[in-house]
Amino acid sequence: MARIVQKFGGTSVANLDRIRNVAKRVKAEVDRGNEVAVVVSAMSGVTNQLVDYVSQASPLHDTREYDAVVSSGEQVTAGLLALCLQELGVSARSWMGWQVPIRTDDAHGKARITGVEADEIAKRFKDGQVAVIAGFQGISPQGRITTLGRGGSDTTAVAIAAALGAERCDIFTDVDGVYTTDPRIVAKARKLDKITYEEMLEMASLGAKVLQTRSVELAMNMGVRVQVLSSFEDTPGTLVVDEDEIVEKQVVSGIAYSRDEAKITLMQVRDKPGVAADIFGPLAEASINVDMIVQNVSPDGGSTDLTFTVTRADLKRAVKLLEDRQAELGYRKLVHDAGVVKVSVIGVGMRSHAGVAQSMFRALAGKGINIQVISTSEIKISVLIDEQYTELALRALHTAYGLDAA
Amino acid sequence: MARIVQKFGGTSVANLDRIRNVAKRVKAEVDRGNEVAVVVSAMSGVTNQLVDYVSQASPLHDTREYDAVVSSGEQVTAGLLALCLQELGVSARSWMGWQVPIRTDDAHGKARITGVEADEIAKRFKDGQVAVIAGFQGISPQGRITTLGRGGSDTTAVAIAAALGAERCDIFTDVDGVYTTDPRIVAKARKLDKITYEEMLEMASLGAKVLQTRSVELAMNMGVRVQVLSSFEDTPGTLVVDEDEIVEKQVVSGIAYSRDEAKITLMQVRDKPGVAADIFGPLAEASINVDMIVQNVSPDGGSTDLTFTVTRADLKRAVKLLEDRQAELGYRKLVHDAGVVKVSVIGVGMRSHAGVAQSMFRALAGKGINIQVISTSEIKISVLIDEQYTELALRALHTAYGLDAA
Repeated sequence: MARIVQKFGGTSVANLDRIRNVAKRVKAEVDRGNEVAVVVSAMSGVTNQLVDYVSQASPLHDTREYDAVVSSGEQVTAGLLALCLQELGVSARSWMGWQVPIRTDDAHGKARITGVEADEIAKRFKDGQVAVIAGFQGISPQGRITTLGRGGSDTTAVAIAAALGAERCDIFTDVDGVYTTDPRIVAKARKLDKITYEEMLEMASLGAKVLQTRSVELAMNMGVRVQVLSSFEDTPGTLVVDEDEIVEKQVVSGIAYSRDEAKITLMQVRDKPGVAADIFGPLAEASINVDMIVQNVSPDGGSTDLTFTVTRADLKRAVKLLEDRQAELGYRKLVHDAGVVKVSVIGVGMRSHAGVAQSMFRALAGKGINIQVISTSEIKISVLIDEQYTELALRALHTAYGLDAA
Repeated sequence: MARIVQKFGGTSVANLDRIRNVAKRVKAEVDRGNEVAVVVSAMSGVTNQLVDYVSQASPLHDTREYDAVVSSGEQVTAGLLALCLQELGVSARSWMGWQVPIRTDDAHGKARITGVEADEIAKRFKDGQVAVIAGFQGISPQGRITTLGRGGSDTTAVAIAAALGAERCDIFTDVDGVYTTDPRIVAKARKLDKITYEEMLEMASLGAKVLQTRSVELAMNMGVRVQVLSSFEDTPGTLVVDEDEIVEKQVVSGIAYSRDEAKITLMQVRDKPGVAADIFGPLAEASINVDMIVQNVSPDGGSTDLTFTVTRADLKRAVKLLEDRQAELGYRKLVHDAGVVKVSVIGVGMRSHAGVAQSMFRALAGKGINIQVISTSEIKISVLIDEQYTELALRALHTAYGLDAA
């Protein structure tokens, strides 16, 4: 007997037929003698409709009311899945975030879970009852409904798994696992059997939209074994686990990319202490996230070129903000470019292997692709390239690191 | 300064434009210096959609899950109205049933309110905050979401008004008040300025679908002044008040009708003690509501004819149940007829006036309409007639009792 948490996303519960299929999957786990808690998202399309209502009602909305409205979608799915389980003869009840309770801070719209009291759910496991929990929502210290941000149901599932001491947290989605890279672009992409938390974190934050980044962080911190698998197929998925569990470490496990990048270069910035703070301070205050930053050594000692990236949605605001401050910041010229893509190779094996970056640069050079910006971390190398080379670069790197399927 | 509760039904909040209009009406009340609590229904169509989902998921559903699913509609409207009020510069927040809290028993799907703790709402009135309350829902002693049955938002509004000691509870709907009879049938029907609780109760339970019956009972018991008025027009509505407040009492205030009637006659039932219990006992156990009952004096002392009515939806079940027990009950023949209508004249003035029934019988006879069953209460006379005479009967009675508009 094991304790399992299952999470089903919006496409997996898109209509009643699919919810019935989910009920069958849950029942299969119960029939194996397991204790099961299920976390569900809203039926696909519902959350968008609700967000649209809120935007129409009030463009700059009170996020507390946004949460009250938007959280209702998960409530509906939870009730319906409990009913479908009962129809299959499985004892089940729905739980709203405030009923569990899943306690959060009061950062409405993107609240963080502060505690989960799952005792009552665990008690009911003894009577064979399945808990069907509305994902994406919690309750604030003030007793208001909160939501955890887009993809927040993944985080709900991991938090519930941690609170219940579950053996595994299965995230059912519309893909059957985590791939070495995007299979829509690279036909030879392979599904990974296992991936480490750190790698998954990089993959998630770099645009592989399989898991919400925060859910991976939480799983890593709480030691929750997460499995990503398909709700439409009966194949094993990808296990996200601790590095110790992976015996044969790949140097590079996966290649991710993000098109949501825009590059800004400030030419001939005065090269003196404090200038970076003067530039990035105002951007941070305007909630503009800066990702890669590169500053060249100044050739003449007096001025330097500074390049950094922001999301495409933030580009206009960032440019305006910096142009308004040109005199103050003292740069000569601002150039920007939204036609760029960030490509990253990721692998915990990098730590103990030299030459990984060199292989990347050689592979890209071999295809005549110019690297605009480079940034590295312990387990990742990212480069910014012209967007039109995205597919070419991914395929070349996938081959270069020996990831191609046989 | 007064304390006002306003309730807006599904058609009044059918889309965002209408919710914005509701916000304007609420603001007008706030601008008059009043403290306002608003109770809202789900956007029209939403509850039906949710009920449909539930029926598809599980035909004989767990009513606790039904409530979890169906209550979400009001949650959405409450949040959206709070946002629209904020857009107009009015301080407002949404309240779910469990947040107020509105406590109910655990008769899910048709729960009764057992208590409303409105202290926090009243406290926030001091800061000028409008309370937007999700109607139709409450919380059970077990902490589950309950719903109050169709039309339950009316009851929520009255209960909130009672808890807040509100001066008035305005029920905004798609008609502009309570009429002497159905204006779609009788062109000369008049809107009533005032009606007593007792009369409204009879009107409501007899098919005038303006207010949920239970809300009228509650208003009567708690002494809440209710006004029924249009959310689309700016005219005064109908006040539902205590008898003392009505100086000029009409003998007959209104004429109601219900097509949801079916007649069953058991011919030559043995006329002996206990036979009525033998017949109506099994019907009650099968949750079949029996309305009018007439038993003729037996001409020969040995057997009698028994006639009664049930709703049309229950007719088939009732007939089958009685036919299965024919030997046991010992009647000769069962006849049934779904082509009947119940017409009722209602008025508190009846108590002190003789001849009211006689006027009714004469008016119907004058049009050649045969009366099949008669039943009376202190302030009401109901007759069962052939359905095809409905319009004719209503018009004749409306004229006979002097209710026609000038």
